[in-house]
Amino acid sequence: MELLNETHAPALRSWVRSANQSGCDFPIQNLPFGVFRRVGSEEAFRAGVAIGDQILDLQQLQDSGVVAGEAAEALAACQGDTLNSLMALGQPAWSALRLALSRALREGAAEAGQLQACLLPQADAEYKLPATIGDYTDFYTSIHHATRVGSLFRPDNPLLPNYKWVPIGYHGRSSSIGISGQQFRRPLGQTKAPDAEVPSLGPCKRLDYELELGIYIGAGNELGEPIALDAADNHVFGLCLFNDWSARDIQAWEYQPLGPFLSKSFASTVSPWVITLEALAPYRTAWQRDSADPQPLSYLESAQNRASGALDIQLEVLLQTAQMREAGEPACRLSASNFRDSYWSIAQMVSHHSINGCNLKPGDFFGSGTQSGPEQSESGSLLELSQGGKQPITLPNGETRTFLADGDSVILRGCCEKAGAPRIGFGEVVATVLPAVEL
Amino acid sequence: MELLNETHAPALRSWVRSANQSGCDFPIQNLPFGVFRRVGSEEAFRAGVAIGDQILDLQQLQDSGVVAGEAAEALAACQGDTLNSLMALGQPAWSALRLALSRALREGAAEAGQLQACLLPQADAEYKLPATIGDYTDFYTSIHHATRVGSLFRPDNPLLPNYKWVPIGYHGRSSSIGISGQQFRRPLGQTKAPDAEVPSLGPCKRLDYELELGIYIGAGNELGEPIALDAADNHVFGLCLFNDWSARDIQAWEYQPLGPFLSKSFASTVSPWVITLEALAPYRTAWQRDSADPQPLSYLESAQNRASGALDIQLEVLLQTAQMREAGEPACRLSASNFRDSYWSIAQMVSHHSINGCNLKPGDFFGSGTQSGPEQSESGSLLELSQGGKQPITLPNGETRTFLADGDSVILRGCCEKAGAPRIGFGEVVATVLPAVEL
Repeated sequence: MELLNETHAPALRSWVRSANQSGCDFPIQNLPFGVFRRVGSEEAFRAGVAIGDQILDLQQLQDSGVVAGEAAEALAACQGDTLNSLMALGQPAWSALRLALSRALREGAAEAGQLQACLLPQADAEYKLPATIGDYTDFYTSIHHATRVGSLFRPDNPLLPNYKWVPIGYHGRSSSIGISGQQFRRPLGQTKAPDAEVPSLGPCKRLDYELELGIYIGAGNELGEPIALDAADNHVFGLCLFNDWSARDIQAWEYQPLGPFLSKSFASTVSPWVITLEALAPYRTAWQRDSADPQPLSYLESAQNRASGALDIQLEVLLQTAQMREAGEPACRLSASNFRDSYWSIAQMVSHHSINGCNLKPGDFFGSGTQSGPEQSESGSLLELSQGGKQPITLPNGETRTFLADGDSVILRGCCEKAGAPRIGFGEVVATVLPAVEL
Repeated sequence: MELLNETHAPALRSWVRSANQSGCDFPIQNLPFGVFRRVGSEEAFRAGVAIGDQILDLQQLQDSGVVAGEAAEALAACQGDTLNSLMALGQPAWSALRLALSRALREGAAEAGQLQACLLPQADAEYKLPATIGDYTDFYTSIHHATRVGSLFRPDNPLLPNYKWVPIGYHGRSSSIGISGQQFRRPLGQTKAPDAEVPSLGPCKRLDYELELGIYIGAGNELGEPIALDAADNHVFGLCLFNDWSARDIQAWEYQPLGPFLSKSFASTVSPWVITLEALAPYRTAWQRDSADPQPLSYLESAQNRASGALDIQLEVLLQTAQMREAGEPACRLSASNFRDSYWSIAQMVSHHSINGCNLKPGDFFGSGTQSGPEQSESGSLLELSQGGKQPITLPNGETRTFLADGDSVILRGCCEKAGAPRIGFGEVVATVLPAVEL
């Protein structure tokens, strides 16, 4: 596909004036999809597109009859309270709808008057999961995270021999994925202290976040039919922010030999807006493999992937403790990293996932794995930042953390920014730890 | 709950005469649920109950107006092409419907004439998955399997320290679960031979089956609210046979540190009929823990679980190769085992799965893990039977197998049988290996 088209033009401005402000996450070049309703109402949830500080209600837009042609078919698929039908239509339909929305939201658009009536301020909205997620797969694509965590669990053998060959992933739990604003109880679980003879049941003592990107699959594939690397991007609807909460002490005791289970399945939180892969096209960049590392096997290798497989997405983690919240203090930044440093591209994840014939379905969800950069300060988890709990982090208000405390809110943010291109923001995902159930 | 009621009485006979024949899998004491349509038709799939060699069509039954009261509400939930709504209603509703069906199908029932019109021979039916499976979890509950397989991968450390404390499980892939009759391509994947310097892509060379029971969750739980052990059975709708196909060579290369992924997600096959936990009540038996082994932590321990947590279900694996099929020879038995030997009970699986607050939903699915007995001959996989591929098995027609060949059909069967109780059969699940996609 042609990477850039008229919807990406940096000069485009919207008649929705908040979309034109510098620093806005949702300019007219973004147009992310979500599912919302008026906050606190009993209204049905419905699909919308973020523009500036507003939401364009796609149900009202449909009723207005403004959108015609191929885009109208895509818009019709947005009716209902999930985006799965739109996701199933495939890239040409998503692109047609994006183009129609871009044109109708531009300064000077004839439809502005009619569309004005379809807007709701984001401040008045609440969200639900934008898709019914069938299967959720979590990858492990940051070699910096894998190496740093591996060195805590296996000091003499941090990076396993398969890492540089296999885009490692495992199946996750979809039922406990919630939308930004999620509050969840600290999990109970079995843990065994190194000096204990037997395990015991209790609240997790090493609760952590993981800074990840989430990836929604659009069009699927039939069972038995792998997706070729250069076709993979056409199966990806879009991206969001994703916090893959992790109970490190439960994980350490349970994970061998079959991998993480209850240490991950108590909660995972996504941001409300899905940034389409098309919107991210200006931030595609070369996917590189260090010449000292093995080059990928042929099914994970192509000129297209090398030229533009990586995405330059800036990510950051912030923490607001209960004490900060009560004192009216803002969240403080814990770290920042960039998805460009991922060892594997999204296309490689898709292609690897289906090489065995596994069928992906519209609305299926991938986690990218914790995105940590090469520097220790770019770590996407407390496990790394506190060096396995050995080095407490001191917060601006004097509190310290090795792992999360009850009442802590963790906020992930993401954006794409560079000279000569429109800023494409992800918004944020926030969630809060509640005390454990009493035993 | 009272384990046995009038629906279990061994003397009950049905006016559907095939249900009264000895050796029948589906006598009136069974009444399993499935989703079917006339084979080769374009009819909508609909729910049914197996009785003898017939299916009672629950859509036609609903239309007949024969069923009244609490059972009518449960019957109304069976309309549509999945059982998820019935599963969500909970144990009292399932029990009421079972009682009504039992009474209406008994010899002498006044409704016999009307119900006769709702029957379709099983020979004329085809099936689909009985539920929309949200999340699928695979357990690892056979200590004999875990020990035998562990000794192949880790001769000096076959059983990991957590095994006797934690009902080990991992998240599986639901999209590729298919119904009996499934034909699937041998998966492609990355493997690395022990003497190879680098991995390569190719068709799986060590394709295996796994003899498992499948478990459908009925009523779910809210996120953050664990299910207590003695309440767990009320959340279980029923059981089926389950073949968890496994690519051993792909698994060996990919599984560290996050567990099996593409080695399992290419196909898994379930039998069409869901045997309710209530139908299995006569086969409940004491759940025992060897006194040399640690006793479970308190959340996995109760008098009720000790008294009746185990289920006496006989399982067997049969193989029919392409050569046997062409020669008109029947499938040959590879092994047999019993679910009674499982190290963990179903209630323990449910309770453990939710102890961290993870929410289970109606239609969620558990695999029991490969059910192998204490004897080598009771192994539920070829990996065990062939001792990691070192000891080929000779079949009655002279063919040999270490792992599966293209064209092989694997059949799993299960039944409960003992003196003084009705036979409760599971039917069978069959699936066939097709050649890999050409590279």
